[in-house]
Amino acid sequence: MIPVGILGATGMVGQQFIACLANHPWFTVDWLGASERSQGKAFRDAAAWRLAAACPDDIATKIVEPAAPGNAPKLVFSGLDSSVAGEIEAAFAAAGHVVVSNSRNYRMEPTVPLLIPEVNPDHLELLKAQSAATGWKGSIVTNPNCSTVVLAMALAPLRQFGLKTTLVTTLQAISGAGYPGVPSWDILGNVIPYIGSEEDKVESEPRKILGALAGDRIENHPVTISATTTRVPVQNGHTMSVSVGLEHRPTAEAMIAAWNSFRGLPQELGLPTAPAQPIVYRTEPNRPQPLLDVNRDNGMTVTIGRLRECPLFDYKFVALGHNTIRGAAGAAILNAELMHTRGIL
Amino acid sequence: MIPVGILGATGMVGQQFIACLANHPWFTVDWLGASERSQGKAFRDAAAWRLAAACPDDIATKIVEPAAPGNAPKLVFSGLDSSVAGEIEAAFAAAGHVVVSNSRNYRMEPTVPLLIPEVNPDHLELLKAQSAATGWKGSIVTNPNCSTVVLAMALAPLRQFGLKTTLVTTLQAISGAGYPGVPSWDILGNVIPYIGSEEDKVESEPRKILGALAGDRIENHPVTISATTTRVPVQNGHTMSVSVGLEHRPTAEAMIAAWNSFRGLPQELGLPTAPAQPIVYRTEPNRPQPLLDVNRDNGMTVTIGRLRECPLFDYKFVALGHNTIRGAAGAAILNAELMHTRGIL
Amino acid sequence: MIPVGILGATGMVGQQFIACLANHPWFTVDWLGASERSQGKAFRDAAAWRLAAACPDDIATKIVEPAAPGNAPKLVFSGLDSSVAGEIEAAFAAAGHVVVSNSRNYRMEPTVPLLIPEVNPDHLELLKAQSAATGWKGSIVTNPNCSTVVLAMALAPLRQFGLKTTLVTTLQAISGAGYPGVPSWDILGNVIPYIGSEEDKVESEPRKILGALAGDRIENHPVTISATTTRVPVQNGHTMSVSVGLEHRPTAEAMIAAWNSFRGLPQELGLPTAPAQPIVYRTEPNRPQPLLDVNRDNGMTVTIGRLRECPLFDYKFVALGHNTIRGAAGAAILNAELMHTRGIL
Amino acid sequence: MIPVGILGATGMVGQQFIACLANHPWFTVDWLGASERSQGKAFRDAAAWRLAAACPDDIATKIVEPAAPGNAPKLVFSGLDSSVAGEIEAAFAAAGHVVVSNSRNYRMEPTVPLLIPEVNPDHLELLKAQSAATGWKGSIVTNPNCSTVVLAMALAPLRQFGLKTTLVTTLQAISGAGYPGVPSWDILGNVIPYIGSEEDKVESEPRKILGALAGDRIENHPVTISATTTRVPVQNGHTMSVSVGLEHRPTAEAMIAAWNSFRGLPQELGLPTAPAQPIVYRTEPNRPQPLLDVNRDNGMTVTIGRLRECPLFDYKFVALGHNTIRGAAGAAILNAELMHTRGIL
Repeated sequence: MIPVGILGATGMVGQQFIACLANHPWFTVDWLGASERSQGKAFRDAAAWRLAAACPDDIATKIVEPAAPGNAPKLVFSGLDSSVAGEIEAAFAAAGHVVVSNSRNYRMEPTVPLLIPEVNPDHLELLKAQSAATGWKGSIVTNPNCSTVVLAMALAPLRQFGLKTTLVTTLQAISGAGYPGVPSWDILGNVIPYIGSEEDKVESEPRKILGALAGDRIENHPVTISATTTRVPVQNGHTMSVSVGLEHRPTAEAMIAAWNSFRGLPQELGLPTAPAQPIVYRTEPNRPQPLLDVNRDNGMTVTIGRLRECPLFDYKFVALGHNTIRGAAGAAILNAELMHTRGIL
Repeated sequence: MIPVGILGATGMVGQQFIACLANHPWFTVDWLGASERSQGKAFRDAAAWRLAAACPDDIATKIVEPAAPGNAPKLVFSGLDSSVAGEIEAAFAAAGHVVVSNSRNYRMEPTVPLLIPEVNPDHLELLKAQSAATGWKGSIVTNPNCSTVVLAMALAPLRQFGLKTTLVTTLQAISGAGYPGVPSWDILGNVIPYIGSEEDKVESEPRKILGALAGDRIENHPVTISATTTRVPVQNGHTMSVSVGLEHRPTAEAMIAAWNSFRGLPQELGLPTAPAQPIVYRTEPNRPQPLLDVNRDNGMTVTIGRLRECPLFDYKFVALGHNTIRGAAGAAILNAELMHTRGIL
Repeated sequence: MIPVGILGATGMVGQQFIACLANHPWFTVDWLGASERSQGKAFRDAAAWRLAAACPDDIATKIVEPAAPGNAPKLVFSGLDSSVAGEIEAAFAAAGHVVVSNSRNYRMEPTVPLLIPEVNPDHLELLKAQSAATGWKGSIVTNPNCSTVVLAMALAPLRQFGLKTTLVTTLQAISGAGYPGVPSWDILGNVIPYIGSEEDKVESEPRKILGALAGDRIENHPVTISATTTRVPVQNGHTMSVSVGLEHRPTAEAMIAAWNSFRGLPQELGLPTAPAQPIVYRTEPNRPQPLLDVNRDNGMTVTIGRLRECPLFDYKFVALGHNTIRGAAGAAILNAELMHTRGIL
Repeated sequence: MIPVGILGATGMVGQQFIACLANHPWFTVDWLGASERSQGKAFRDAAAWRLAAACPDDIATKIVEPAAPGNAPKLVFSGLDSSVAGEIEAAFAAAGHVVVSNSRNYRMEPTVPLLIPEVNPDHLELLKAQSAATGWKGSIVTNPNCSTVVLAMALAPLRQFGLKTTLVTTLQAISGAGYPGVPSWDILGNVIPYIGSEEDKVESEPRKILGALAGDRIENHPVTISATTTRVPVQNGHTMSVSVGLEHRPTAEAMIAAWNSFRGLPQELGLPTAPAQPIVYRTEPNRPQPLLDVNRDNGMTVTIGRLRECPLFDYKFVALGHNTIRGAAGAAILNAELMHTRGIL
C-alpha cells in the first residue's frame, strides 16, 4: 500500500478525499494536514464530519499535522482553499512531494498538467519542463474545476468533428461551494445566476485540457467557449445545457456513438477509480438528472442526454457530472492512479 | 364595473385569475365556468384553493357553471387546459364572446393576436381579419407561453439594434406546470432538463410577437432562437440565461438604457395592471433571483441583470419574470385592459 | 434460488421491491403482476422507473402479468395500493400463495401477523389460526406502516422498563406518499401538518406489534400512543420526536444500552437483509438526520439520538428510519427471510 | 413622527426592522447603529440587503453610526446579536434610551418585561422596579424568542381552562437562524432535530409571559412545558405540534371560540401593527401551513388548526406564526406602539 497525505483534510474536499480513499486498493491515508487551528487535535475533534458515508475509525483518531512538508508521505492530495494553496503546495513540491491538487492556483501554469486521465494523459510530460522551470524536487499536478471536468469530458470525443464553439449554461449544485458555502436563506427555492470567477474557469480551462502537447508546452485547443454559471438547490451534480459548433457536422448517431464508445488510458489500464464507460448517453427525453444519474459508477461517469439539432450551432445537449467526485476528489485520485502506473510516484 | 367570466376557473390559472382580479378597478368576476365535474357546486366545494392569497368570499360561494356560452358575460378569461381549450374557446367566440386566453391552442393562428401590450399592441388589428376568416361574432386574443413573455419582453427593446439570434436556457419554476403538476419526488433537490413541447413555443412564439403588422397579417421577426428549457425547484419565476446576436452592436450602456427606458401603450394609458417600468435592469452581480425579484410591481415586471459580452454572440444576460402573473393571468388581464381602452370589449 | 412474484410491481413500492431484491442471495424475481393497464407489456414499457438504482435488465424485459393467481410463484410480495389490495391478496392467499404484504388492508386482522422480525417473530404462530379462520391454502403476513416500524422498533427495547405512554410527532418524507404522491407545489419549502389516516395507524399498530402472543391471538400491549403526523420536504426518512412514560424509570445510560444492545432473531439467524445492529444510538447533539443517517446498513437500521429527560413524561428522544426500506420493501423482505427459515415458504 | 434608531441595523433582524418600519405611521428610522466594521459607511455599502422587499432609498444612503449612545433617538430597536447585546443595550438604557429589544439577554431578568402586547401588557409595570433596581434613566423591554411568541399566543386563551401542561415539537424555518445562518448543505432536503439552547427558551419564557403581575414582580404561570425544537427547509414560519393538559377540559368548540375571539389591548387601541384577529383557527384538515398561512395580516397573526383530542393530554393542535415578523421585528414594533400609547416613550 502506498501511503498518502491529505492537505486541507478538515474541509469539504478533504473529507471527500478521505471518503473516496476508504478501502482504496493502492492508497492508504497516512497523514492529515490542516491549518493551525486544527493541529495537534484528533481529526474527529478538529473536523465536523459532513458526509453521509461514515468517517473511517482510523482517520477519526489520527492527529492532524501542520500543513508543512516534513513527515508527510511523498504523495499528497490537496484540497486546500485557494487562498492558501499557492504557497503551501509550492513548499511541498519544492520539498520533494508529489502534490495532486484540486485547487485552482496552478491549473493554468504552463508547466503544470491540468489533467483528466481519459482525455489528456500525455500532458504529464509537462512535469519535465516543470522540474526544469521550478527546480522543485517534487511536482504539482492539478485537476480541473468541477464544472470544467464535466464539460471537457463531454467535448473531448467531439474534437474529431472539428470542435469550434461551445456555449454552456450550468446549473450547479451547492456542494460545489464547500462548507459552510451557500447560506440556505439564499438558495432554498431559488436560483442564484452567478458564481464568482467560475465563468472564467469554464471558458479557459477546457482549452488547455483539450490542447495538444507540443514538446514541453501545451498548445491550447482553438475552441471558443461562452459560459453562464448558476447555482440551483441541488445537493450534488452540475447540470449543463450545451450548444456546440463543429467543422465537420456528424450525424446525431455519430455524436452519440462518439460519447458511448469513448475510452481512455484509465479504462485500458483498469485503474481502480476508472469507470468502465466514462461517458454514458441516455436516450430518455428527460435525462440526465442529478438525483437519478449523478452516482453512476461511484460518481465517476459523465451522463449526457437530449441531443438535438441547434438552430444556431450544430447540436445542443445536456451533460451532468458529480462535482465533488468526478469534479474534485475522484478526479485527483484518478490522476494519482494514472501517475502511479506511469512511474511518477 | 365590467362583468367578466373565467373559463377553467377551478384550475391553477383560473385561481390566479381570481386572485389577480380581486379588487380590480374595472373588472368584476361574475361567472365561473369549469368542467362537468364542478358544475352546480359552489366554487369552494369544486376547487381546492391553492394560493396563499385568500379566495374572495363572493367567489367562494358562487356556483360553477358549465363551460359553454350562454349566460356568461361578454368578456371571458380562459385558463382552460389545452386539451379542451380549442373547442370551447371557439364556441365562445362564435357565440359573441371576447375570449382572452392563456391557452396555447390559438396562439400561432395567423389571425389571432399573440399579445404583449407593451410590445405589439397594434397586433389587435388582426381581429378584423379574424372576424372575416372565422365568421365569429366574438373573438379570441391570446397571451404567450410563460417563458416566451419574459424572453420576448427582454428582446423587444433590442430590435432597434438589429436582433438576429437568441440562444436561451431557461430555469423554470414548478408553478408553470399547473396543479398537481410536477411530483415532488421528481423535483425536490433536482433539475429536470426537459419540459414537453416548451422549446418549440419559446423558439417560435417570439418571432410572431416581435413581428410587424403587415395589413391583415403578421410578418414574423427574422430572429433565430435556440431554446433549452429546464425545470428547477423554485416556486414562482422563470430565470433565463440568454445570448443575443445583433446587427448593430451597441455599447453595454445603450443596451441597459434600452431596457430601463422601455415603455409601451400600457404605461402611456396608465392601465391598472401595467407596471410603471416594464423592464428593470439590476446592477448587482448576482441578480435577478426568483426569490428576491419575482414579485416586483405585483409580478408584472421583467428583471434583467448580468449583462456581459458573449464570446460567441454579442451579449449575454440573465432575465427573470413571474410565470403565473406576467406569464399567465396578469398577461391576459393586461391584454383585456388594453382591449377595453381600444373599444374592443 | 426461491422464485418470487411482485404484486403491484409498477408502483413505487413495487419498484423498491425490485431494487431491494436485485442480487438477493435467496430470492429471485420471477413474476410481475400489475393492473390491467400494464398487462402484456414489458416492465420497462409498463412502468416509468423512478429510482436512482438502475432497473435490472432481466426485469426490464419481463412481461407484466395480470394481478391474479395462476402462474405466480408461491411467495408473492405485495406493494398493491390499498384500494385494491384487499380482494387481490385474499385471492392469492386462497389459491395457496404466501402473500408478504406492505398494504394496510389486513394489518389489524386478528389472525394476520403484523411483523417486525426483530420484535415479534413469534407472531407468525397466528398463521395456524389464520388458516383455520379463513380456509386459505396460503396465507397473508404484513409489515407495519412506514412510521409505525420506526416507532415500534424504538419502543420495543423499552418494554422492559414498563412502557406506558408515547407521544410522537413525525416529520415524514415525501417518498412515503408514493408516486406521483405529493405535488411539489404543496411541499417545496413547506410543511403539511396532516397525512390522511396516518395518525390512526401510528396510534394502533404498535400496540399489536408490541403485544404478546396468547395462544392463537395477540394481546395488545397496553401502551397509550398519541400521534401527530406531518409531511416535510425530505426525500427519504421519517424523523420522529418521541416522549415516553415508563413504569420503572431507568437511567439514560440504561435506555441507550437497551437500544444499542437490542438484537433479535434476524441477527441471530444472520438473515441476508438483517442489519448487524438494528438500532443505533448517536451521541452527537444534532442527530439523527435523514440526509446523514437514513441509509445506514442499506436503510435497515433505526437511528436514535437526543435522549433527554422530559418534564412531562420520563424521557424524550428523536428516532429516524428509512420509510421505503425499513418501512416498506426491506421490511417485507426481512419478513419473508424469517418465514423461509421457519419453514413457512 | 417619532424618530427611532436601530441597533444591529445591518443584520437580518435589523433589516427586518427597516422593512417593517417603512411607511410606519408613527415611527421613522432616523439612526442606524452597527459594529465597528460598518461604521461610517452608507448603509447600502455596509449591509448586503437580503429581503425581497426593497431597502428604502433614504435608509440605503444613511451613514451607519457606532453602536453607542450619543446622538441616537430616545427609542431604539435592538436586533443585536446576543453576544454583544448585553453590554450595549445596558449602556443605551443607562444613557436614557428606551431599548425595545429582540435579543435574549434580558428576557428573563425579573424587572424586564417580556412582552406580547395582546397577552401581558400589564407587565410594563415592571419598568418602575427596573428603574429602581438599575438606576437607568432609560429602560429595556424585550419580546420573546420566535418560537415562544407563537406558543405563548396559542396558550394565552387557554389559561381560562386551567392550563397545566404543554408538550410541543417545533418545525422551525431557516430564517430563524439569521444570516448566513444554516448552511444549505445541512438543511436542503433534510431535518436537523436540534437548535442550540432553543428548547430552554421555549420551556421557560412562556411561564413568565403567561404569569401574573404581582406588585413589582411576575409570578410565573405554573404550566409545565416540554419542548423539542427542529429545523426544517422552510423559509419563514415556525410550525408547532402541541398537546395541552387543562384543569377544566372545555369542548373543542369552546377551545376554538377562545382562540378566534381572543383580542387584546393592541386591537382595542387599534395599534398600527396589530392584526384585527390575533389568532385565527382554520377548519381545513391540513392547515396551518407555512406557505399558505404565514403572511396573514402582514405576518402578525398566529394560525391554529387540527384541534383533536389527545389520548394522553386533553387536546392536541398545530400552531404557526411568522418567526421574523410576529416572532421578532413585528413583535418589537408592536411593543413600542403599545409603550407609546402608555406614555412610556
